[in-house]
Amino acid sequence: MSLADSPLLTDLYQLNMMAAYRAHGMLDTAVFELFVRKLPPSRGFLMAAGLEQVVQFLEDLRFTPDDLDILRRIGGFPDTFIDDLADFRFTGDVDALPEGTVYFPDEPVIRVVAPLPQAQLVETRIINLIHFQSVVASKAARMVLAAPGKQLIDFGLRRAHGAEAGMLAARASYLAGFAGSATTLAGALYGVPVFGTMAHSFIQAHDDETQAFEHFARARPAQVVLLIDTYDTEQGARRVVTLAPRLARDGIEVKGVRLDSGDLAAHARAVRRILDDGGLRSVRILASGGLDETSLAELTRDGAPIDGYGIGTSLTTSSDAPALDCAYKLQEYAGLPRRKKSEGKATWPGRKQVWRRRGPDGRFAGDTVATLDDTAPGAPLLVPVMRAGRRLDGLPTLEAARRHAAAQLAALPPALARLEAAPYPVTIAESLRRLADSCDRRTASMPGPLQ
Amino acid sequence: MSLADSPLLTDLYQLNMMAAYRAHGMLDTAVFELFVRKLPPSRGFLMAAGLEQVVQFLEDLRFTPDDLDILRRIGGFPDTFIDDLADFRFTGDVDALPEGTVYFPDEPVIRVVAPLPQAQLVETRIINLIHFQSVVASKAARMVLAAPGKQLIDFGLRRAHGAEAGMLAARASYLAGFAGSATTLAGALYGVPVFGTMAHSFIQAHDDETQAFEHFARARPAQVVLLIDTYDTEQGARRVVTLAPRLARDGIEVKGVRLDSGDLAAHARAVRRILDDGGLRSVRILASGGLDETSLAELTRDGAPIDGYGIGTSLTTSSDAPALDCAYKLQEYAGLPRRKKSEGKATWPGRKQVWRRRGPDGRFAGDTVATLDDTAPGAPLLVPVMRAGRRLDGLPTLEAARRHAAAQLAALPPALARLEAAPYPVTIAESLRRLADSCDRRTASMPGPLQ
Repeated sequence: MSLADSPLLTDLYQLNMMAAYRAHGMLDTAVFELFVRKLPPSRGFLMAAGLEQVVQFLEDLRFTPDDLDILRRIGGFPDTFIDDLADFRFTGDVDALPEGTVYFPDEPVIRVVAPLPQAQLVETRIINLIHFQSVVASKAARMVLAAPGKQLIDFGLRRAHGAEAGMLAARASYLAGFAGSATTLAGALYGVPVFGTMAHSFIQAHDDETQAFEHFARARPAQVVLLIDTYDTEQGARRVVTLAPRLARDGIEVKGVRLDSGDLAAHARAVRRILDDGGLRSVRILASGGLDETSLAELTRDGAPIDGYGIGTSLTTSSDAPALDCAYKLQEYAGLPRRKKSEGKATWPGRKQVWRRRGPDGRFAGDTVATLDDTAPGAPLLVPVMRAGRRLDGLPTLEAARRHAAAQLAALPPALARLEAAPYPVTIAESLRRLADSCDRRTASMPGPLQ
Repeated sequence: MSLADSPLLTDLYQLNMMAAYRAHGMLDTAVFELFVRKLPPSRGFLMAAGLEQVVQFLEDLRFTPDDLDILRRIGGFPDTFIDDLADFRFTGDVDALPEGTVYFPDEPVIRVVAPLPQAQLVETRIINLIHFQSVVASKAARMVLAAPGKQLIDFGLRRAHGAEAGMLAARASYLAGFAGSATTLAGALYGVPVFGTMAHSFIQAHDDETQAFEHFARARPAQVVLLIDTYDTEQGARRVVTLAPRLARDGIEVKGVRLDSGDLAAHARAVRRILDDGGLRSVRILASGGLDETSLAELTRDGAPIDGYGIGTSLTTSSDAPALDCAYKLQEYAGLPRRKKSEGKATWPGRKQVWRRRGPDGRFAGDTVATLDDTAPGAPLLVPVMRAGRRLDGLPTLEAARRHAAAQLAALPPALARLEAAPYPVTIAESLRRLADSCDRRTASMPGPLQ
C-alpha cells in the first residue's frame, strides 16, 4: 500500500463528519479555501507550491476494498456509508494560485468547490501537500535571493522528515530556483537535475587521500567533484593539483572540489589560490555544511570565491520556520457564506479573489482580497485548475512553474527581497467586510440554549 | 512506485561511490555508526525511534528493472555495475539501541556492519528514518513529561512534512507515550489507537450549533466529542447541557467537549462549571490549538480542568528543533579503525558500545562510550537486531517498545525530566581515546602531495 495514495491518510474526524453529513442529507455544495493566517517572523512572503500533487491526489482518490475493510474494522460507521464509499470520486472544481506565485496572509491559495462530504474529506491531505511545499519553496526562495548567480543544490534528503518530504523538498526547491538536488529519485520522478559528489567515508575507506580522489575520478570520469576537507582542506587542494595532470593525460577533467567544514570563505580563498597557482583555474569550488540563507548572504557579501552551494537540513526542514499557521476553512455552504468566529481565529467568509497591483517598475505594489463577484485594481491571481473533478488542459509543467517563480522573485519590491523583509500591503476589500457583517448578523440570530 | 521502498531514494553520491568501490574491488567489511553530535539547545535527552522501519527497509531492499532503467538513463555507470545491482541484497549485521531508549550525543544509535558498497548505499535512508522518528519521539517525550496523567493525542498530520512524516509521527509519538493519533491510516498500519472528533466546518455548515451537535451525535453515537468554540465557548457548553438529556433518552452519551481557541485554562474552568452544574460531571474536556510542551506545563501548573490534549504542528514538525545534528560515519574498514578529522566534525573511530550506570534509586547516573572489546560500569545498551541481512527473532513490538520508553522516562534523573534539562554525564572511555590516537598516527603518515 502506498501511504500517499490512500484516502485513509486523513484525520478520522473527516470520515466521522462525512458519515454525519450523509446521514443528514447534507450534500450541498461547499466552498473551502486554504490560506495562511500570519507569516512566521522570519518570512516576508510565501511562495505557492504543491498544487500539482493536489490535483493528482484529487483525480486519483478512490477507496480500495482494503480501505473499506479497514473502515469496517474501525467500527461504528453505517454499512450504507461504507458501501457508498466504493463509488467515491472527487467531482469538484478547484481554483488556485499557480505554483511559484508569491503570496501573503489572508489570501486564498486554493479554493475547493464540491459536495460537502467530498470537500471535507480532502482537507487533511490538501493542507499536508500545499503546506509543506510552500514551506520549502518559501525558504528556498530566500536562499536564491541571498546568493544571486550561485548554483544551489538540495542536499537535504537525509534529514528531511521522511521519504515524501525529501522528494517534495527537491521539487519545491527546484521550483523556487535551485539548480537541482542530490536525491536520485527526484530526477526520475520530477525531472529535477540530479547532482552527486562523494562522501567523507569514501576518502576514509582509502589509506591515502590522493588514491581516493583518483579512484573516484576513474570510476565516475564525467562528474569529478572531489571532497577535500576530510583531513586538511588546503592539503586536500594541493593533492588535487598533483593529481589533475595525471588524470588529464587520460582525458579526465576535475570539474570541482567541495569544502564541507571550517571557515568556508577563508578556505575557499586559500583553495582558489592553490588551484589557480596549480593551473586549475577552471576547477569550481562548491561548499556545504550547515548553510542557510543567512550564511549564504554573509558569504555573498564577503565575496567568497565559491561557485555553488549544497544546502541540506535548513532547506528541507525549513529549520527556522518548519510550519505555517495555515487553515482550510468552510467559506460557503448551500449558497450561504459561512464564517468561523473563534477567538483569534475568525475567518473571512465567501468565495474570494486576490488582485495584485504593480508599480510603474513592474514590481508588486499591493494586493486586495475581494469577494469573487467584486473587482479591484491590478490583475486577479487565482486561476481555474480543475472542473468537475478533472484537471484542465495546459496546466504549467514544473519547468514553466519555475520560470514563473523566477519572474515573481524578480518582481518583488526591494524591501521584500531582503532577508529582513518589510511588510507588504494586503487590503481587505469593502465587499468582503460587508459579506462578513451580513454573515455575523445571521449567526447572531442562531437559537440559544434555552430555545 | 512507492517512494519509500525505492533504492533510488538516496543521494546520487552513494551510487557514485558504490560504482567506484566496485570498480576498485573495495568490497571489504565496513562499519558505520549513526550518532548525534550535539543536542539542540532545547533538548536534554533524545529517544531512539525508527529502528523497525530501518530493519524492514534493509530486508526489502531490491533494485527493480525500473530502477535499473533509471540508472542507465542517468548515464555514466558501467553496465557491469548496473547488471550487478539486479542481485543486490543487504547481507550485513545491525546492532542498535532498542526503540524507546533514551540516548545522548556521541552514543551510537545504530551500527551497520556490511560490505562497503552496501553499507554506503543505505546511509541516506537510514538517517532519514532514524532521524525523523527520534526527533518526534524526543519532542513527544517532553510533552508526556509536561502533562503527567493526561491523554495526549497526535493531531498533526496536516502540517507534518508529507505523508510519511505524518504516519511516522503518529507512530513515534505513540511510542513515546501518546495515547494515539487522529491519523486513520496509522491505526491500520501500526495499530496506533485512532481518535476523531469534529471540525469547525461541521458546525459552520449547519445554521444552528445545537443542531450540528445533535446531527453529529446521532451519526457517530459511540464517540460523541463536541467542538464548542466555533462561536462562543461557554454558549457552546450551555448548548451541550441542553442537548445531553435529549440524547440520553436515546441512549447516546456525550463523552467530551473540545476547546480549540482562547485562554484554554479560563475556558476549561468556566466550561467545567457549566457542565457540572448541568449534571454532566462525566463529560471530559479536551483542548487543542497551538499547544506544545511549554503550554502543557503551564496548564498543568495552573491545574486547568482539562483531561486530554490534541497536539498538532509542534509535535509533528518538532517546531523548536526540527532537526538533529546527526551523522552516519565510517568507523572501520577492512579491519582498520577510521576517523574523520574535519574541523569541528571529528569522529570517534571503531566499533563502540554504550554502558549506562544507574544510581541506588534505579535512575540513570551516567554513560560511558567504549570500544566494543572494552567494558565499563553498568549495562550495555546496543543489542543485536539483524544478522546476515535477516532480522533476529523476537524484536520488540510497538507496544513493547512503548513500555520500554515509559520505563526509560521513569528512570530519568529529576534534573533531566524537567523541560529546562541539566547536562547528563557521558564519558569517552580510555579505550576509545587510545584507538583515536592510533588512528591519527596512521593517517598522519599518509603520503603528502609531493610524494
